[in-house]
Amino acid sequence: METLLLINGPNLNMLGIREPEKYGKTTLQAIVERLTQQASQEGYKLLAFQSNSEGDIVSFIHHNGLSARGALVNAGAYTHTSIALRDALLAVNLPFIEIHLSNIYAREAFRHHSFLADKALGVITGFGDYSYDLGLLALIHFLREKSHA
Amino acid sequence: METLLLINGPNLNMLGIREPEKYGKTTLQAIVERLTQQASQEGYKLLAFQSNSEGDIVSFIHHNGLSARGALVNAGAYTHTSIALRDALLAVNLPFIEIHLSNIYAREAFRHHSFLADKALGVITGFGDYSYDLGLLALIHFLREKSHA
Amino acid sequence: METLLLINGPNLNMLGIREPEKYGKTTLQAIVERLTQQASQEGYKLLAFQSNSEGDIVSFIHHNGLSARGALVNAGAYTHTSIALRDALLAVNLPFIEIHLSNIYAREAFRHHSFLADKALGVITGFGDYSYDLGLLALIHFLREKSHA
Amino acid sequence: METLLLINGPNLNMLGIREPEKYGKTTLQAIVERLTQQASQEGYKLLAFQSNSEGDIVSFIHHNGLSARGALVNAGAYTHTSIALRDALLAVNLPFIEIHLSNIYAREAFRHHSFLADKALGVITGFGDYSYDLGLLALIHFLREKSHA
Amino acid sequence: METLLLINGPNLNMLGIREPEKYGKTTLQAIVERLTQQASQEGYKLLAFQSNSEGDIVSFIHHNGLSARGALVNAGAYTHTSIALRDALLAVNLPFIEIHLSNIYAREAFRHHSFLADKALGVITGFGDYSYDLGLLALIHFLREKSHA
Amino acid sequence: METLLLINGPNLNMLGIREPEKYGKTTLQAIVERLTQQASQEGYKLLAFQSNSEGDIVSFIHHNGLSARGALVNAGAYTHTSIALRDALLAVNLPFIEIHLSNIYAREAFRHHSFLADKALGVITGFGDYSYDLGLLALIHFLREKSHA
Amino acid sequence: METLLLINGPNLNMLGIREPEKYGKTTLQAIVERLTQQASQEGYKLLAFQSNSEGDIVSFIHHNGLSARGALVNAGAYTHTSIALRDALLAVNLPFIEIHLSNIYAREAFRHHSFLADKALGVITGFGDYSYDLGLLALIHFLREKSHA
Amino acid sequence: METLLLINGPNLNMLGIREPEKYGKTTLQAIVERLTQQASQEGYKLLAFQSNSEGDIVSFIHHNGLSARGALVNAGAYTHTSIALRDALLAVNLPFIEIHLSNIYAREAFRHHSFLADKALGVITGFGDYSYDLGLLALIHFLREKSHA
Amino acid sequence: METLLLINGPNLNMLGIREPEKYGKTTLQAIVERLTQQASQEGYKLLAFQSNSEGDIVSFIHHNGLSARGALVNAGAYTHTSIALRDALLAVNLPFIEIHLSNIYAREAFRHHSFLADKALGVITGFGDYSYDLGLLALIHFLREKSHA
Amino acid sequence: METLLLINGPNLNMLGIREPEKYGKTTLQAIVERLTQQASQEGYKLLAFQSNSEGDIVSFIHHNGLSARGALVNAGAYTHTSIALRDALLAVNLPFIEIHLSNIYAREAFRHHSFLADKALGVITGFGDYSYDLGLLALIHFLREKSHA
Amino acid sequence: METLLLINGPNLNMLGIREPEKYGKTTLQAIVERLTQQASQEGYKLLAFQSNSEGDIVSFIHHNGLSARGALVNAGAYTHTSIALRDALLAVNLPFIEIHLSNIYAREAFRHHSFLADKALGVITGFGDYSYDLGLLALIHFLREKSHA
Amino acid sequence: METLLLINGPNLNMLGIREPEKYGKTTLQAIVERLTQQASQEGYKLLAFQSNSEGDIVSFIHHNGLSARGALVNAGAYTHTSIALRDALLAVNLPFIEIHLSNIYAREAFRHHSFLADKALGVITGFGDYSYDLGLLALIHFLREKSHA
Repeated sequence: METLLLINGPNLNMLGIREPEKYGKTTLQAIVERLTQQASQEGYKLLAFQSNSEGDIVSFIHHNGLSARGALVNAGAYTHTSIALRDALLAVNLPFIEIHLSNIYAREAFRHHSFLADKALGVITGFGDYSYDLGLLALIHFLREKSHA
Repeated sequence: METLLLINGPNLNMLGIREPEKYGKTTLQAIVERLTQQASQEGYKLLAFQSNSEGDIVSFIHHNGLSARGALVNAGAYTHTSIALRDALLAVNLPFIEIHLSNIYAREAFRHHSFLADKALGVITGFGDYSYDLGLLALIHFLREKSHA
Repeated sequence: METLLLINGPNLNMLGIREPEKYGKTTLQAIVERLTQQASQEGYKLLAFQSNSEGDIVSFIHHNGLSARGALVNAGAYTHTSIALRDALLAVNLPFIEIHLSNIYAREAFRHHSFLADKALGVITGFGDYSYDLGLLALIHFLREKSHA
Repeated sequence: METLLLINGPNLNMLGIREPEKYGKTTLQAIVERLTQQASQEGYKLLAFQSNSEGDIVSFIHHNGLSARGALVNAGAYTHTSIALRDALLAVNLPFIEIHLSNIYAREAFRHHSFLADKALGVITGFGDYSYDLGLLALIHFLREKSHA
Repeated sequence: METLLLINGPNLNMLGIREPEKYGKTTLQAIVERLTQQASQEGYKLLAFQSNSEGDIVSFIHHNGLSARGALVNAGAYTHTSIALRDALLAVNLPFIEIHLSNIYAREAFRHHSFLADKALGVITGFGDYSYDLGLLALIHFLREKSHA
Repeated sequence: METLLLINGPNLNMLGIREPEKYGKTTLQAIVERLTQQASQEGYKLLAFQSNSEGDIVSFIHHNGLSARGALVNAGAYTHTSIALRDALLAVNLPFIEIHLSNIYAREAFRHHSFLADKALGVITGFGDYSYDLGLLALIHFLREKSHA
Repeated sequence: METLLLINGPNLNMLGIREPEKYGKTTLQAIVERLTQQASQEGYKLLAFQSNSEGDIVSFIHHNGLSARGALVNAGAYTHTSIALRDALLAVNLPFIEIHLSNIYAREAFRHHSFLADKALGVITGFGDYSYDLGLLALIHFLREKSHA
Repeated sequence: METLLLINGPNLNMLGIREPEKYGKTTLQAIVERLTQQASQEGYKLLAFQSNSEGDIVSFIHHNGLSARGALVNAGAYTHTSIALRDALLAVNLPFIEIHLSNIYAREAFRHHSFLADKALGVITGFGDYSYDLGLLALIHFLREKSHA
Repeated sequence: METLLLINGPNLNMLGIREPEKYGKTTLQAIVERLTQQASQEGYKLLAFQSNSEGDIVSFIHHNGLSARGALVNAGAYTHTSIALRDALLAVNLPFIEIHLSNIYAREAFRHHSFLADKALGVITGFGDYSYDLGLLALIHFLREKSHA
Repeated sequence: METLLLINGPNLNMLGIREPEKYGKTTLQAIVERLTQQASQEGYKLLAFQSNSEGDIVSFIHHNGLSARGALVNAGAYTHTSIALRDALLAVNLPFIEIHLSNIYAREAFRHHSFLADKALGVITGFGDYSYDLGLLALIHFLREKSHA
Repeated sequence: METLLLINGPNLNMLGIREPEKYGKTTLQAIVERLTQQASQEGYKLLAFQSNSEGDIVSFIHHNGLSARGALVNAGAYTHTSIALRDALLAVNLPFIEIHLSNIYAREAFRHHSFLADKALGVITGFGDYSYDLGLLALIHFLREKSHA
Repeated sequence: METLLLINGPNLNMLGIREPEKYGKTTLQAIVERLTQQASQEGYKLLAFQSNSEGDIVSFIHHNGLSARGALVNAGAYTHTSIALRDALLAVNLPFIEIHLSNIYAREAFRHHSFLADKALGVITGFGDYSYDLGLLALIHFLREKSHA
């Protein structure tokens, strides 16, 4: 079974706890379980990781990125500040999709720029935790198209 | 049966004809047929419209937006220049999702800003014509959540 | 009887229908009728035109601008994006006054710049539909001064 | 009888003396008299004030703004440099209209920004001393609408 | 006989009528006739089109660009605002030369940027209606070089 | 007994009167009395001054700054526009602390820059009228440290 | 006893060791002890934390922020680069005061912008380690005012 | 005898007292006496004025500018912030020379822009109080050339 | 016989030798000979000059510009950096056309600005060495029009 | 034996594995061994450290910087985002040389700015892993010069 | 006798010939003769140099700057583009005064910045060729003050 | 024996004479001799050139660049202003290394940008005249690697 990565950045461990009126009541654990099941039905193993530390995410990508087929990345605030994360994803040459819970264009100006977006397959932003489901569909669709090409 | 709008802006009538190596061989007509069928299976009627004229799109939204439940909008170049389109969508108070075929963040700088994004439910960009499928899923998901709230 | 133009841009056909709490309940038709009567009392014929199409407004100015004495222009969103409209007004050498319902300086930053203002006789902004009455007064005042000079 | 303020900033005492080919031959005193009469006919007392000093204008607003119903403000050059004037008008919570003799958008770039405009009811610019007449009409109109609401 | 396109944007229908001291007395019709004859002598058919509507020019390019060999484009004001026009020209992959009557670098700053120039074969600006003659020479020269390569 | 200055700029005479929900009900007079008492307990005489006039504040600093030991400066709107005030404080070589009632970083962008801050000992902003108490503590602390050095 | 947080960012463990001529000889440990005692006298428990790792500070806020009443935050260099820290403080909805030893406005331009300041109660900058004492006073003052409101 | 104005702005009354190592020991009074004598020898009466108040300087120019032949203006900090001063000088149509003691280009960036310079005959900056002597020479030279033209 | 100047700036002596795949195989000498012949057929003498030195080009214009009728100028890299060259062309009041081999708008951003373009009759860019032929045609056309006016 | 530090930032552990066609096949371990030997021959001990975590690098500098003589720093992506790293190097007052494998000026614009460069002895960029050899030579040269001064 | 340098940059050899209505009829030779005589009367030898070549001016400064006491520099267009000239003046550590014939602040924006001004003793701009006389007076005044210090 | 070029730009002839406390006492001649010897030991002939003239350096590169293997370029001030120099190096397709004596990032902002760096093999800056030794090592290393590839 091939592996897909599900990477979550800083503060996303607070999902369901923090500001539920803004981000909903679903916890990150619940999302991971749901996505794991969906991936499994499509024949993929999902490896999930969350950290508040930029360096730990970079290391996770080094250790797991080379053997994985693709990734869903919700880098949270690091989306807007981390060149190191961009470099790590490029280093292991891993196709990835950028995901956000909220619509980042409806928030502060400093959230409108992403250091990942121009290297992503695509971006999905604004659909709450359903963004993850859409992201998984898009990633699997991409891998199928590629294997048929 | 409730109605969803599928709005396509300038040059999208050239899909499948124009630069197939960049945008794929699927024509706009084929996409509309596929989305219509999908919407129908979910109990919605899809009303599709394409125009190269900013004013015509504004008028279409005026005439159909008040009675529709939501919209998928791929405004093409008008995404980056049309405040009139933004105003029209706000005037009819229609929930919409912004869609793009290509990853706009991997293209010219003037395509990185959207006059629609901060008012959209969310944005989906970069998955070729599969962006429309994802957009339809997201829109229906949003409408179901809302009706359950 | 000499002619004055009353030009309204995109979305203004929605006046009285769209967001009445922001723009009032008076329809564009009611405004046109009121202004027509006022102009008539002062000895002018008022020719009114509204379009959501940038190109159609440009054409209207070409066809009617040369034989008119002046214009009131509420270009709506095109105020901020249309160089074509600016050029059309200059081409027929028509004195005009720029009008807005709302105070554009109290709205989003992208509405603070006008491609028309530096070529207008003056600008009146922020008085709801009474801006049109003030504009007509100002235009007639200007024409009288000119004929006496 | 209720009071309206007519506030004029630096250099406006030179009206009619200074650059008549640009600003006309009418003196500030003549304007004040004309406006006073017009206000009186509409049932308002007009309290006029001119100063070259930013601080004196701020103090005038403190002393008279709380008991007045509205103001016409031609702040001259202070329009573009005075945050203190903006704060004074906000402090007494006084509805005001920003007025200019010349079309400020047709002049130097540093005259295109106003620290007052986004807090004004509206702006009237470019009609010579007739701008004051239009301003008075607009202010009285606003007060009537408000009292009827 | 192969076809060349001659595309003229907004306001250029006013050539010879509008501001003759700035743009000369030659009408657009006269230019089209002169260019048609010159093209014919070189063995090409010239298909000319003028419109004030951005959408119509986009559509004209879609319908005629695929079967043409090259184009002369004087997009007028759309040069500076239309991403849709740029996209249309790229969509049909048509070699084109950007042309202007006046020297755009001696005019307002907002006319110094072109959304077409970096994709054009070259730019000719400032020679009045003789710019068209030079453009035609350059286009034919380019096509000959290419066919010899 | 050594002297400390307490300088307040434009509109601060309206404290307690103006917008109490934003700035509290305490008047400037009450603050001055409270600070005077606190200073007195620490062995300092407090000389307080408020003016709406930039020039008067500059003159006050000239006349009293050379014989004072330090100053608390709430320059209000002049914080953001007055280089003359900066120069006056430098001319008399007076250690000073910049104070604001509200958190200026949570307000309009034009209030984020200060012409005084880089020359102040430090800045205290956002604690309502308690900012003055903190400022006095900080100034006395600074003077004691200096005398022990 | 209620808890207050004292959060120190990167390099602040070097206080008293690093550049004593710029930051003084007092170590961070000495400051923590002093503040702990002062807080204790006012009836609060002080929980102090220092880390050079952005992720660790984010995690500390998650674990301790929900049960605390307020925080003093000297984020050091992360003040200017960390959106994750801002998000963490907002996530636990904790009132906080931004503190700096040196006057950041008298240093390099890249230290003039803060990702925290507009969300802080207020900012205190420039008084050496006495900034902490002032910050504690301000925080306790704020909590008392709030409990009396 | 014709009159020349010598206008000095804020803080220049501190000359010779303030920062002598930067601006020299000569007082403003001494400069005025020296210049008065020099002007007298050339057949001109010198009328000197200093104020810390922007409004007072504007008023001085109104009252004395129309009957004077020219002016030397050291506006100090108002050079960089006062549009009112610029307008006053233009209103009385008075030829003037901009003067500075220090080299403003070797100081802070906010002193590099002048609201007066583009309307001055010329600018002299950086020669300490000798800048005034040079300015007087230049002004008299200009008036002689003009009277000979 | 009247004289036309053909001025070439730095690196253009390498034409035909340097990067032939970008600039073609034609040498500068061949271009000069071709243009000389063409000019001769039209009754003009062509005086050609190339230098890598900014100062030498300035001096050449001084010595030959006053007696010439017009110039073709390909200033190469000096187009973007030389104000001296601009001043020299203005000093001798010589009508000139700016020419480039490559399309400067399709190259690095620092080549998009020209210190010559706003003073040129017009600009021709992007047609390889055929740009010179077009330039000569345009210059002769201009001189004929002028002599007929 | 005195100590030199060799500090490597995020992703540099992937050297030799990641993108060998861009960065070469030499691993970081091989470089460390080579440099250690070279340093040893010159009488220095080399202490090497690599981490993907910003905080860990800061802490490493705190613990080892005070006793070391100098450092070679390849901060990778943190070069462009980390003020904390800059502060750490300044805190321990350690002479250091900034090193990069690739020529950062030939890469994306966001890699052109360094938060370290203005505080470094010098910068060496673009020579692949030979940049480390050059850096070691330069550091030893600097230390010798200093000890002879 | 000590030496002063009089350095003139590109196009100044055209003085009196070029645009006399803008720069006057006096030739550079006449100015040099006049200044030489004036310098001589004050006990200085004047060494004058003009070149259109940046490199030649740099070399002139190297050869003559070390033995001279001061310089008057009218660098013409090189004022705004030459860092090499700035470096040359700093290399020989020569006090100099920047001079311009016209008021550069009343001309194009690209003439408002100088690479010399912040290193000059002072700047004199706008008095035609009398700027040189004023510059010589200022330079001699500076040297006398210095020798008395 | 193959040739390497050593190119020095403006003011570098003053090395050892000019500001020795900043640039050291070593003259350019001494550096050239040292580098010549080192190159010779490695089997290369070093051809050195220094000029203060941009055009002469461009010409030198044309005449010698085609037959050389590589170059060390210290362009001095022309690094920041000369596009012509960039073009010359590209024209002869010569691998080169950019060198500076001082750390340009610790100097004025206008020295932080280089027109050469993105086309260089690499950059070495800040090691005094030892930068040349490092540059020669790097260049020879590059040539060896290339010949082995």
